[in-house]
Amino acid sequence: MQMIRWGLRSLCRSRKAGLYGYSSKRFLRTASFGAPLNRNPAEIRSKVLDCRESYFWSSHGLHDIRYQIHQDRKSADEEPVDPFALVSDELSIIANRLRSMVVSEVPKLASAAEYFFKVGAEGKGFRPTVLLLMASALNMPRPESVAAEIASSFQKDMRTRQQCIAEITEMIHVASLLHDDVLDDADTRRGVGSLNFVMGNKLAVLAGDFLLSRACVALASLKNTEVVSLLATVVEHLVTGETMQMTAKAEQRQSMEYYLLKTYYKTASLISNSCKAIALLAGQTTEVAMLAYDYGRNLGLAFQLIDDVLDFTGTTASLGKGSLSDIRHGIITAPILFAMEEFPELHSIIDKGFDNSENVDAALEYLARSRGIERTRELAVEHANRAAEAIDALPESDDEDVLTSRRALVDLTHMVITRSK
Amino acid sequence: MQMIRWGLRSLCRSRKAGLYGYSSKRFLRTASFGAPLNRNPAEIRSKVLDCRESYFWSSHGLHDIRYQIHQDRKSADEEPVDPFALVSDELSIIANRLRSMVVSEVPKLASAAEYFFKVGAEGKGFRPTVLLLMASALNMPRPESVAAEIASSFQKDMRTRQQCIAEITEMIHVASLLHDDVLDDADTRRGVGSLNFVMGNKLAVLAGDFLLSRACVALASLKNTEVVSLLATVVEHLVTGETMQMTAKAEQRQSMEYYLLKTYYKTASLISNSCKAIALLAGQTTEVAMLAYDYGRNLGLAFQLIDDVLDFTGTTASLGKGSLSDIRHGIITAPILFAMEEFPELHSIIDKGFDNSENVDAALEYLARSRGIERTRELAVEHANRAAEAIDALPESDDEDVLTSRRALVDLTHMVITRSK
Repeated sequence: MQMIRWGLRSLCRSRKAGLYGYSSKRFLRTASFGAPLNRNPAEIRSKVLDCRESYFWSSHGLHDIRYQIHQDRKSADEEPVDPFALVSDELSIIANRLRSMVVSEVPKLASAAEYFFKVGAEGKGFRPTVLLLMASALNMPRPESVAAEIASSFQKDMRTRQQCIAEITEMIHVASLLHDDVLDDADTRRGVGSLNFVMGNKLAVLAGDFLLSRACVALASLKNTEVVSLLATVVEHLVTGETMQMTAKAEQRQSMEYYLLKTYYKTASLISNSCKAIALLAGQTTEVAMLAYDYGRNLGLAFQLIDDVLDFTGTTASLGKGSLSDIRHGIITAPILFAMEEFPELHSIIDKGFDNSENVDAALEYLARSRGIERTRELAVEHANRAAEAIDALPESDDEDVLTSRRALVDLTHMVITRSK
Repeated sequence: MQMIRWGLRSLCRSRKAGLYGYSSKRFLRTASFGAPLNRNPAEIRSKVLDCRESYFWSSHGLHDIRYQIHQDRKSADEEPVDPFALVSDELSIIANRLRSMVVSEVPKLASAAEYFFKVGAEGKGFRPTVLLLMASALNMPRPESVAAEIASSFQKDMRTRQQCIAEITEMIHVASLLHDDVLDDADTRRGVGSLNFVMGNKLAVLAGDFLLSRACVALASLKNTEVVSLLATVVEHLVTGETMQMTAKAEQRQSMEYYLLKTYYKTASLISNSCKAIALLAGQTTEVAMLAYDYGRNLGLAFQLIDDVLDFTGTTASLGKGSLSDIRHGIITAPILFAMEEFPELHSIIDKGFDNSENVDAALEYLARSRGIERTRELAVEHANRAAEAIDALPESDDEDVLTSRRALVDLTHMVITRSK
């Protein structure tokens, strides 16, 4: 599958001939702008360093590179695919199964737990879509040769098990939303009243716990302890990220490194590790599992970076048109952090806090004069490209379904960075 | 091991010759006082029916049976054992490991999570003591014959894995305490400020989630998916019990059946299922695992029933000397439920709620005139006996350590019902 990536065109093209398995390798080369060299691969794969390096790269290396979106997206022979349409039937199955999985003998608990799985409130199904496409994208011969007959029954069972990962991921995601909303005293979520607002904090805490325990029971039923451990670690990451955000000291709030690590924990860990779980359940090699992880990780980071931009711009490109909910809650995100490098005066504004709107306005003014939004988008594009490269690096396949799913996964990286809501 | 149980002496003695494996069988016979007969064994083992039947039994069958405590506890040749002293060395190992297991890279999260594992605040170690003694009590030949050499290495590994169950159980227990304290707006726990009081609700919710995820990671490391599933179900039970208590309707608050089911979920499920996990990790049969479960279940129920008595009496036998915290929070427990059978007038008092102390006083007056406290103790004694019978029903062993541990487990059932705090 030959594709030319959107964005960062000059860079991508000049390096196209040298595409390789791990996006971190490419990264190592480009990181030479600002990051220390001579790292060993294991060190580079560590998420912490990876975060730190991508920061260096974006802040020092991309200043003079113009990026453009919507160009050279695909070679002419590739049909456009709608990633969501490809798996819509399975999405319905998963949505129905989720509703039946959160039934409890205590009526209030059941209605609390199913609150976000109800028809109309169940979200876009972004995570399940990614996971189902990943399952199809990795549907290729496994390392061990398996007799045709066994393979066929395994195939069906495997798909059900992979669907189960999608369900578990949604349950963990919604559990974390329920607890986060309690923590943030949020009053709306997905356009409806947040559960804590409608049913009270106590029930929201319990419903979150209930979903976590159901997710854990479902995980155990997969009888793969590596996968159990992987997704338990995700729950720990979600908690760690939330606590990092909640307890950050002044210095940490103004650190890009801290921000990126928190973003990995809060957003990218769930999708990256569940992508990896899909690969493990498919019986794929460690290398393939790492590529699945890389895809999820970079897609998740790109997604959050754009989210942080949209919090300032909303559906337009104009600053201040977003909800500004982060900055009003005192949460400092990438656009402000980049702006701060150009305008150190922002430090003292951030120190004062954003309880009054004058300070918010002052910060927005500096942001408008800076390249903060642009550089955040650049960083998102870079992560989107890395995600797409992970897909390119998968073992070759001539299976039409596999190729279509891989194209859809790459298209998703595009949708993530071009979305306006 | 021949023992004559304390309490309910006439009943116990007359039936001693017919002791058998499952306490439910014994129960079936005694249940004929009030419960429907002709149940099949599977049905009888179901916890819901079991709770319901034990209610019928206690409310209809025990009226005329005098029980006495502290008599005929043991045959003369049995040395007294201190259950806690038997495992004190291992308890220290577990306490230390718990402290090292809850370390986090986020300082606030670490200090929140370790709050109840600190020296001086870590509790009496009741659950770990039960589990370690159970591990020793089941240290007998496994169904499969294992070569001597392998057996010896397995033995050591097995003990470490069983200790791990004790650690996981403590983490789940403390996580539920943290969330419960948030739900109850509690300001103290174990004599120190509750975590939500000291660090705020948000951090208490996160610390609970963190402990649950660490417990789940530790569970996965045991590589036994049946055990993962068992303890995940416990978390679900804890949530279900808490929600039942929180959302009970007027009718449910006055139902003994509802109360017993809630008590199983909130208190007995954790210890019973972790006892079962100990047996499973020891490679024991389903029958032995069920006896371990029966022991834990009945011990847990006896423990809670006495807790409910002590909430009214405190360290004395005088009513109103306890903290009265349940009734003041509107939580109706066994003593009041039994009293209500004698004095239906209590229904309307309960309906009015206990926000004013006059209503509390009125309820206490009825309780004092009733056999509520006595019948609650009788029920606790009955469950303690059933727990001891489960130990008696274990396959015979002539190993001195095994016998000592079994004696200690039986002694624990005694300590549970005779404790005054």
